[in-house]
Amino acid sequence: MNVIEKFAKNLVDQIADAGEKFLDLRRLRSKSVYSTVKLCEELISHKGVASGIALAREIINRYRQMTGDDKLKFFVELKKKTGPDIAAVSKLARIFLKTRDEERLMELSKQIRAARYKLFNRLNTAPGGTAAIVHMREDLLQFLPEHPELKVMDEGLKELLTSWFNPGFLVLKNVDWNTEAAVLEKIIRYETVHDIKNWDDLKRRLGDGRKCFAFFHPALEGEPLIFVEIALTKGIAGSIQSIINSENHFEKDADTAIFYSINNCLRGLKRIPLGDFLIKQVVNELAMELPSIKTYCTLSPVPGFARWVREEVRRGKSELIPQEDLEKLKVLENEKWYRDPETRAVSEEALTRACAVYLVRVKRNGKPIDPVARFHFGNGAQLYRINWMGDTSAHGLKASFGLMVNYLYDLKHIESNHEAYEEKGVPAVSRSVRSLLG
Amino acid sequence: MNVIEKFAKNLVDQIADAGEKFLDLRRLRSKSVYSTVKLCEELISHKGVASGIALAREIINRYRQMTGDDKLKFFVELKKKTGPDIAAVSKLARIFLKTRDEERLMELSKQIRAARYKLFNRLNTAPGGTAAIVHMREDLLQFLPEHPELKVMDEGLKELLTSWFNPGFLVLKNVDWNTEAAVLEKIIRYETVHDIKNWDDLKRRLGDGRKCFAFFHPALEGEPLIFVEIALTKGIAGSIQSIINSENHFEKDADTAIFYSINNCLRGLKRIPLGDFLIKQVVNELAMELPSIKTYCTLSPVPGFARWVREEVRRGKSELIPQEDLEKLKVLENEKWYRDPETRAVSEEALTRACAVYLVRVKRNGKPIDPVARFHFGNGAQLYRINWMGDTSAHGLKASFGLMVNYLYDLKHIESNHEAYEEKGVPAVSRSVRSLLG
Amino acid sequence: MNVIEKFAKNLVDQIADAGEKFLDLRRLRSKSVYSTVKLCEELISHKGVASGIALAREIINRYRQMTGDDKLKFFVELKKKTGPDIAAVSKLARIFLKTRDEERLMELSKQIRAARYKLFNRLNTAPGGTAAIVHMREDLLQFLPEHPELKVMDEGLKELLTSWFNPGFLVLKNVDWNTEAAVLEKIIRYETVHDIKNWDDLKRRLGDGRKCFAFFHPALEGEPLIFVEIALTKGIAGSIQSIINSENHFEKDADTAIFYSINNCLRGLKRIPLGDFLIKQVVNELAMELPSIKTYCTLSPVPGFARWVREEVRRGKSELIPQEDLEKLKVLENEKWYRDPETRAVSEEALTRACAVYLVRVKRNGKPIDPVARFHFGNGAQLYRINWMGDTSAHGLKASFGLMVNYLYDLKHIESNHEAYEEKGVPAVSRSVRSLLG
Amino acid sequence: MNVIEKFAKNLVDQIADAGEKFLDLRRLRSKSVYSTVKLCEELISHKGVASGIALAREIINRYRQMTGDDKLKFFVELKKKTGPDIAAVSKLARIFLKTRDEERLMELSKQIRAARYKLFNRLNTAPGGTAAIVHMREDLLQFLPEHPELKVMDEGLKELLTSWFNPGFLVLKNVDWNTEAAVLEKIIRYETVHDIKNWDDLKRRLGDGRKCFAFFHPALEGEPLIFVEIALTKGIAGSIQSIINSENHFEKDADTAIFYSINNCLRGLKRIPLGDFLIKQVVNELAMELPSIKTYCTLSPVPGFARWVREEVRRGKSELIPQEDLEKLKVLENEKWYRDPETRAVSEEALTRACAVYLVRVKRNGKPIDPVARFHFGNGAQLYRINWMGDTSAHGLKASFGLMVNYLYDLKHIESNHEAYEEKGVPAVSRSVRSLLG
Repeated sequence: MNVIEKFAKNLVDQIADAGEKFLDLRRLRSKSVYSTVKLCEELISHKGVASGIALAREIINRYRQMTGDDKLKFFVELKKKTGPDIAAVSKLARIFLKTRDEERLMELSKQIRAARYKLFNRLNTAPGGTAAIVHMREDLLQFLPEHPELKVMDEGLKELLTSWFNPGFLVLKNVDWNTEAAVLEKIIRYETVHDIKNWDDLKRRLGDGRKCFAFFHPALEGEPLIFVEIALTKGIAGSIQSIINSENHFEKDADTAIFYSINNCLRGLKRIPLGDFLIKQVVNELAMELPSIKTYCTLSPVPGFARWVREEVRRGKSELIPQEDLEKLKVLENEKWYRDPETRAVSEEALTRACAVYLVRVKRNGKPIDPVARFHFGNGAQLYRINWMGDTSAHGLKASFGLMVNYLYDLKHIESNHEAYEEKGVPAVSRSVRSLLG
Repeated sequence: MNVIEKFAKNLVDQIADAGEKFLDLRRLRSKSVYSTVKLCEELISHKGVASGIALAREIINRYRQMTGDDKLKFFVELKKKTGPDIAAVSKLARIFLKTRDEERLMELSKQIRAARYKLFNRLNTAPGGTAAIVHMREDLLQFLPEHPELKVMDEGLKELLTSWFNPGFLVLKNVDWNTEAAVLEKIIRYETVHDIKNWDDLKRRLGDGRKCFAFFHPALEGEPLIFVEIALTKGIAGSIQSIINSENHFEKDADTAIFYSINNCLRGLKRIPLGDFLIKQVVNELAMELPSIKTYCTLSPVPGFARWVREEVRRGKSELIPQEDLEKLKVLENEKWYRDPETRAVSEEALTRACAVYLVRVKRNGKPIDPVARFHFGNGAQLYRINWMGDTSAHGLKASFGLMVNYLYDLKHIESNHEAYEEKGVPAVSRSVRSLLG
Repeated sequence: MNVIEKFAKNLVDQIADAGEKFLDLRRLRSKSVYSTVKLCEELISHKGVASGIALAREIINRYRQMTGDDKLKFFVELKKKTGPDIAAVSKLARIFLKTRDEERLMELSKQIRAARYKLFNRLNTAPGGTAAIVHMREDLLQFLPEHPELKVMDEGLKELLTSWFNPGFLVLKNVDWNTEAAVLEKIIRYETVHDIKNWDDLKRRLGDGRKCFAFFHPALEGEPLIFVEIALTKGIAGSIQSIINSENHFEKDADTAIFYSINNCLRGLKRIPLGDFLIKQVVNELAMELPSIKTYCTLSPVPGFARWVREEVRRGKSELIPQEDLEKLKVLENEKWYRDPETRAVSEEALTRACAVYLVRVKRNGKPIDPVARFHFGNGAQLYRINWMGDTSAHGLKASFGLMVNYLYDLKHIESNHEAYEEKGVPAVSRSVRSLLG
Repeated sequence: MNVIEKFAKNLVDQIADAGEKFLDLRRLRSKSVYSTVKLCEELISHKGVASGIALAREIINRYRQMTGDDKLKFFVELKKKTGPDIAAVSKLARIFLKTRDEERLMELSKQIRAARYKLFNRLNTAPGGTAAIVHMREDLLQFLPEHPELKVMDEGLKELLTSWFNPGFLVLKNVDWNTEAAVLEKIIRYETVHDIKNWDDLKRRLGDGRKCFAFFHPALEGEPLIFVEIALTKGIAGSIQSIINSENHFEKDADTAIFYSINNCLRGLKRIPLGDFLIKQVVNELAMELPSIKTYCTLSPVPGFARWVREEVRRGKSELIPQEDLEKLKVLENEKWYRDPETRAVSEEALTRACAVYLVRVKRNGKPIDPVARFHFGNGAQLYRINWMGDTSAHGLKASFGLMVNYLYDLKHIESNHEAYEEKGVPAVSRSVRSLLG
């Protein structure tokens, strides 16, 4: 319980004891969604700091106890009640259109954002306020697909959280076996790329020859926002199983850091950019701590590859895969193709070529369709190598026929790679992968 | 040097070493104000994270080295170059006026704030970014009186800083003789209400029977934002000299905490509300730490009192001071009035009455004209007592004829006091002071 | 790696690099036990600090790699080589007997302890030296039963460790789910009274309504020395299963702290008194943190009870158990006695009476034969209650027919209890238990 | 207030509240020295832990309030009352002389040290116990010259403190402007080699291009034991004024660390070796932190030089100074010799030669008579250079005619230097100084 929490707790008690009624929480004691929205309106217009905190706390507590349906109702109602004052805004807009004056514009902008912005800034003063707001957004995001009208609420929240979770406020921490159990438990829970089975498995992931870093925010103590797992290897590893399953994985002559798993922890921070910043900070941290590490590289999945290949094979022709390869890839229709050495031999080259094509040439809106490729190309990484049987788990075989990919982070080139990719849409590709593209 | 600093340092070096030119800092090497504004524009449109940090860092470094004149030029130019796109904004405003649709409104709002908001959020990613932005605002505020057109820039900055310095992100810390010297040095520097002469004086202020609390922000390490000094006394102290000058000031049966000095440290955070929140948190902290303390009270100056009284005496008549008192107050025209016991005797009652009237009835825009009174009434405090010869320093005698005032923070009543003051303009006044009002 | 470690590491490397030979580790490179003892002798007579650390480090590293047999050989040899100089000691003894002078006596004392004392004090300067010495004693203790001649070595070590682990140097820490995993792992490992099955079980033991405290030593970071587990309950709990197995164990009106498990972690600290001090510090800590807790009490096993009862039953007569009860206790010969309600009914009272007798009257050397009773009586606790079916685990039923005992720590009486027990051998016993004694 | 303090405080209160009398502090309420010694005897024989702490605390509190005379009485009386039991010791000594058995010897040793050892180990359990014991030794040392019979008490204390302050338990900390004021205040107070005038002076000493490190003990929080001040310079500095007086002393290309002041803080730790260990740890720390620093060197005073030279000049002849030089040195009889350029020119070479002779050849008990030389030679340092006008302060001119000396710590040679010095008495001397020796 931090100071603010203690403060609010104490104060609310005292106010209650004194029998004061100005918060009039009793009147709203129905705890209906509507009365909670009413509290929000009160908080927006409220001027007292102390009871402001009490109000914020009451709202957050009520929100926590709402069912999913009530939360939806709450957001729908809140949107209505905290929306901009259309008349006032229209008036200011008309004035601006006449004067074309920047000061009027600022007033207009303020008027547009007034209510909701104030609401969330004040909710944040409650104990646990930041965490509560992140949870609210998590809920809100789930409602969006069916309730697109709530998107305007998310816009405001996203903007606010982007400002609060500015990289300048984040703290990078080493996560290891000396980290508090409460944080490690979250690492186990949020690792979704390559599952951590239990605490023994976790200990292995944090042992010699392994590293893990996470970003934290000062107002969310004990709450990792995003983390990356790293293996220190001799040479660039191509098999995820060799990393995850090995018991004793310390390599004395390690010269490479393999980033094999990055996970976001809080769904309420979706689309708040943290990942690109994390990778680069960690590269830098490792460069100082372990000067013998010369190469920084990922070992990444190719999530949509198998689906794409299957579709091309099904269609029987492809603009991107040569007909000859397409024929060979028909063996993949047998679900157990990988068990037969001959089938594997037939398909290996064709599959690897198809993967290179998929990552570099299959696009949507001018960008690679593969989300992992898009992320790393956008960061200025280079597609370095495609690894045959890089992930032999059931999932890996199903999603990408067992292929895994290395993206290389070469500090000397990430900026020029990034520039070329952003401006001309040309992803950085190693010579060897280029040769696969024909 | 924190992680981000190390990161940026290292990365900039590496980029430089690699001879990359995409930042093209060389082209802009002129370091003119205009080239620096150009870097700002580049930062706004930039997409690479790593070189984004490098850019932000370069801008901040250049800004630091600017002369005052150049800083003014910089802001004037920056205002022009990062202002909203009037054409685009006008178009969106017109669309909105037709559709009256909230989504359009969000787009409009985004468009209005786009450039500057992004600029400062990105500058913040640089090492020491937050501190640099606070310093920028400090400079900007100094230019405002002569350059009111820059006000729109300050509006944006103020909004951003209010969000970043949300009370939910502040950390309350005890300041004592075990605090790091670098922080204590700032306490000495920023104490302007009752000067701290040197380190010995400071040690006395932090000794037994004294307390000091400050707010810190996680991104401004070692930088107190606002602090309050407290004396633990037996009964409500009425003399500031008895607090500040006493050598051995521990009182065994202390039952009262006297808040005798509150100071803001960073001019760049002007009008970002911190003070009201600080007092209430400290009250709460003390309540837990020292349960024997039952009363929380200030010992405050009355800055504009002497000027007002002199003016009334000069005019020879007053709407608020009875004629009889006004006559007595003429003795104050003698600069050394307080040295003569008789003069003191004559004036004491009249002065004290006049002070009560000044604090409660002399208003501007419906609020007390005295800024200290305004602050504490707004917080829900009660004007408790007026102390004759409460400040016998040269300054105290000059500014308020030596009067000091206690404002009482009674947790049971601060909210109702606050409410009455905000809604009806009625300040909370103790029975004894009320009797002075006649 | 702390500073000293880094220091030693660096320095040893540097010395090696410089090709210096004065340590002449090469000559001793055989790494035989004898050469290691030689290094010990060299360390005792050595004067250089830097190479002293290097020497200490080398000895510790070699010791770590020894087999059990070699360790035994090492101690036997070390005892010979670092024993007191009998001639010198005899001479000083004779001088003293003549002069009866205290100064001579100090010289004599110094001469007696010289070598070994110096050896261990110098070994302690190596990185990880304290931990290494504790491990050495652990090994040594295992050899003692078969090699009583080594007891003189243990005497010296025990004295040294008692001084180093003086309660004034220990740090009490709260152990909870925010404790580092490396420490929690040790809590799981060293809990031998009531096994912790896995991490989920541990989390339950540290959850709401539960507390855990441990002593640490500054030189043994991350190494709990002894810890106690506590349940906060409403009233004095009598069943260990109700404590250990409950899922949701938070009791709102808890007024009692049940100390249900105390464990020493380091066998190398055997007979260094830590436990009595721990309990009293924890009582004090809880008194401050949780003022609503009024009663401090253990829930303890009665380890040797079943054996003793079985023996009395087997003999068919007893000085301490009335014949009538002895008859009833025969039902216990059936291993499944507790499954039959009738048998349980028959035996309950007799067993409870026998337990009271066992704890209070069955003695060895004037003290209760039961080690747990001896510990708590010695601490000034009162035997408060005997709980029927207090431990229904297989182990509990076997060792003590399922009985568990509460020892009450009443701060007001622990000293007088202690005094009476130490001076007159009278243990403190509650009225209700006294009534069982007939 | 740490846990133990809180514990003791609380417990003593509780015991008192309960009206228990077993401590019978009342009977001893006279607070005479004799009653306090009685409490010590009681503590030695006492068995209860809780009241043991209370006893220890009472003794320490009483000791603190004693006058100097009472302290002396206390030690004299304590020596008598806690001395070894001569009869018992004699008996054991005789047994040993017969059996010549090591076990008997251990018993004898235990018997000799029993009382006092136990006393101080138990005093240490009181809050602030360690600090109190260190203070006791400080007092005791002052009495020794006049009361040599107390030496046996100091022997025991020294042995105990040497064990407690084993380097393995010390913590090296960087002292800078971010260190707590309470520690910095002690740095100002304990700096006796080159006075720190005030806080501004201190800030300069801790600024850019300067370093300060101190050893701390975990049980003496906020209490530096010994510290060293360092200047980072380009080349080996020869003038202390250039280090101490310079305003802006950061040198970009610094390659040398000059250790220009080492100070012990606690007189109660006299003859507990800390200094040699400190220098070597700091060298190591700097080697890691500032790899550009290649040379580690002192700038040290030559305290007894002037006195020795004056004596030789007075005698008119010298075994160590050539007659020709002795003639030149006569100019030093003029107290203002250094103001006259000619006199300076005459004496420079002769003085420098005499200094080399003094440091290397003037011995007592086979070791250099100069204590600073003895310390550094013993550490394995090399006498590197003698600096003309190295200390032009009044004190420097008086004590050593302004000469200062550099001792070089070359990690590659400190051990061989140390060895040669310890075994053959040959100090390490640079080629240039050797040439001065003729």
